[in-house]
Amino acid sequence: MTTFERTSRTVSLRERDRMSYDRAEAHSILDEAWHCTLAFVVDGGPRALPTLHVRVGDTLYVHGSTGSRPYLAARQSGLPVCVSVTLLDGLVLARSQFHHSANYRSVVAHGIATLVTDDEAKTAVLAALVDKIGAGRSAETRPPSLKELAQTSILALPLTEVSVRSRTGGVNDDADDLDLPYWAGVVPLRTVQGSPTPDRGVILPTPDYLLSGTG
Amino acid sequence: MTTFERTSRTVSLRERDRMSYDRAEAHSILDEAWHCTLAFVVDGGPRALPTLHVRVGDTLYVHGSTGSRPYLAARQSGLPVCVSVTLLDGLVLARSQFHHSANYRSVVAHGIATLVTDDEAKTAVLAALVDKIGAGRSAETRPPSLKELAQTSILALPLTEVSVRSRTGGVNDDADDLDLPYWAGVVPLRTVQGSPTPDRGVILPTPDYLLSGTG
Repeated sequence: MTTFERTSRTVSLRERDRMSYDRAEAHSILDEAWHCTLAFVVDGGPRALPTLHVRVGDTLYVHGSTGSRPYLAARQSGLPVCVSVTLLDGLVLARSQFHHSANYRSVVAHGIATLVTDDEAKTAVLAALVDKIGAGRSAETRPPSLKELAQTSILALPLTEVSVRSRTGGVNDDADDLDLPYWAGVVPLRTVQGSPTPDRGVILPTPDYLLSGTG
Repeated sequence: MTTFERTSRTVSLRERDRMSYDRAEAHSILDEAWHCTLAFVVDGGPRALPTLHVRVGDTLYVHGSTGSRPYLAARQSGLPVCVSVTLLDGLVLARSQFHHSANYRSVVAHGIATLVTDDEAKTAVLAALVDKIGAGRSAETRPPSLKELAQTSILALPLTEVSVRSRTGGVNDDADDLDLPYWAGVVPLRTVQGSPTPDRGVILPTPDYLLSGTG
């Protein structure tokens, strides 16, 4: 399936032209983003937790530590979650305050997250998280010990109920406003990598995958 | 009060050394970030919505449109929300996969969000959102009409139950791992502005507040 089936939770009541259910587009956004927000419910109230994620195939893995609330809850029978990821691509400055906006690409995924309990599966996810930084890095790092695996919690969310919302392009001012004497335009934003700073004692050259410049 | 009172929702069960309840620190993160994630509960399940925000004093204003679910719900008696903001400052590459991490600054705020209904208050928030891009910009844009105000929804969340979580610094590898032949270090990440692209027909010079270089 190249598109996600729409549900009442993923269909928007507004700005439907900004919505997409394309699987490849969702994957691409999830892969580019380093961090996500994990939303869940505790005692009937909303909670949001910023954390790191990695996608492997059609599953989103969210990293955490044992002892944190959502991971404790997921130990029972799975935890209903909503994960969101946002990449901010630019600020849109209109002549009217009303038409100010942002260019962005975002993904929202709903479902039941379960705790990854199998050591082999957990090891594979940790390797994928490290390889997200640079292909091949997992082979150039020490894999987790059994004790470290026990201290690591990973939630798995099947990517089945997913929507993409994005905005691209320029200013959408009303025709009546085009002659106003105000600056309007788009300010692109992007995330860039600075120079890698080696830890004390590291004499190896900086790995190639850190030299590409953008994160 | 220079610090937020701790509650069961803002005290962490893990990595307490990364937590802070400093008001000025929380404000600074909220002011630097362009976007947030608004988490709320619908039919007992979690929802997360990426959106834009602006802080004015001790209130966080979250921008939206009429017709979107949380804003409809907040019209009644207020909506329990959890808002999170994350600034990613770097990737931490350890010799061990387990100690890979990220440097970041994040804020999580809990409370009851209410819909801003007063036109004057709404106008002031829209101006603050525009001034967040550059001080003084609200005076160089057309303020909202009554029709536009009616199409704009803004949620107000008092900043009373707030926590900051952050990580800074270098690699925390175990002493036993320091001699492993693997590259370790920190890769700084930052958000930068590209060159502003004027809209068609704009002949005014780029405003000074867009020339600073970083967003």
